[in-house]
Amino acid sequence: MAARMSCYTLTKIDRSELGKYRTMTTQKTYLVISALGEDHPGLVNSLSRTILEQGCNIEDSRMTVLGGEFAAILLVEGKWNTLAKVENVLPELERSLGMTITSKRTGERPRNTDKVPYGVDVVAMDHPGIVNTLAGFFADRKINIEDMSTSTYAAAHTGTPMFAVHMTVGIPASTHIATLREEFMDHCDGLNLDAVLEPLKI
Amino acid sequence: MAARMSCYTLTKIDRSELGKYRTMTTQKTYLVISALGEDHPGLVNSLSRTILEQGCNIEDSRMTVLGGEFAAILLVEGKWNTLAKVENVLPELERSLGMTITSKRTGERPRNTDKVPYGVDVVAMDHPGIVNTLAGFFADRKINIEDMSTSTYAAAHTGTPMFAVHMTVGIPASTHIATLREEFMDHCDGLNLDAVLEPLKI
Repeated sequence: MAARMSCYTLTKIDRSELGKYRTMTTQKTYLVISALGEDHPGLVNSLSRTILEQGCNIEDSRMTVLGGEFAAILLVEGKWNTLAKVENVLPELERSLGMTITSKRTGERPRNTDKVPYGVDVVAMDHPGIVNTLAGFFADRKINIEDMSTSTYAAAHTGTPMFAVHMTVGIPASTHIATLREEFMDHCDGLNLDAVLEPLKI
Repeated sequence: MAARMSCYTLTKIDRSELGKYRTMTTQKTYLVISALGEDHPGLVNSLSRTILEQGCNIEDSRMTVLGGEFAAILLVEGKWNTLAKVENVLPELERSLGMTITSKRTGERPRNTDKVPYGVDVVAMDHPGIVNTLAGFFADRKINIEDMSTSTYAAAHTGTPMFAVHMTVGIPASTHIATLREEFMDHCDGLNLDAVLEPLKI
């Protein structure tokens, strides 16, 4: 009985160790980095070199100059120990680049196979509240905005101040697309926003 | 003499007041906001509604889901007092949305009429260091990266892990484009990166 007991205990330990090992080797670990500071040439180079030198990889990123500032959001992939190295050098990088850097560990993006990705493109004369009216439309229908990029620009020929939005939304598979599109078009027509809602092909 | 002196002083004050008035009315004032936190539906709606309610406008933005996190960078335009209102509600927004929010006042983007905007598109099999080799190429030539978006995805048909980069760079007008393009193509060919460098038409 004692022999069987210890055997059982050993098996239990083995399984839990195996679980840990599996987590360490097969599940990807991630760090999200957000950086904000005065723009100067070479910033992307310094940021990306630091990440590469610690043995990590930039899996997804958005970086842009906003006013006189450079802002970046990055998803960095690595092993748990190489990500720890990146976390350790961030305070030094903050000082040397003169930026405010925030970081947070995160897991793999949860798979949403019951959602269909759609692209939304809206162009209109610039006026406050366009982002909010679009976000409100999708929030009311529990549709998540997965990605969004907006910009203002002076129109060619006329110089009119314009606003353009590009979004990716995840539409629940149970949603009737034709009805949603009709509601969305009515919503945008009412506000004089020129809009397109189309399935993402890639 | 005393009369002239006071008259001179008055003029000086008037001019400085006029300058302040001009700054307040004609120069746009901006706030850059960077937000990072756990993703849940309705985040864009809450963020954009708060900015709209304080009388401000989102002029430029990038938002995306990275792993399980939602990350956003926004350029908010407003009057000095409405921007102050936004700054005041950010701590409350941080608590209610469970996000880390950083903000910084900034000015209008400096006009660089001596720079020609070019678009760079690179696609390759995913491996660490692609962002860094591209950033290094442009940093060595003092060419600033104005905007960048990168993503990884599984290729259609084969499922190969791919990496795609889209950048906007500002090339100094004095640069000989054909030479730069040749150097860039050689650099990318050497690393087996499929690349395009083209002038931005809008």
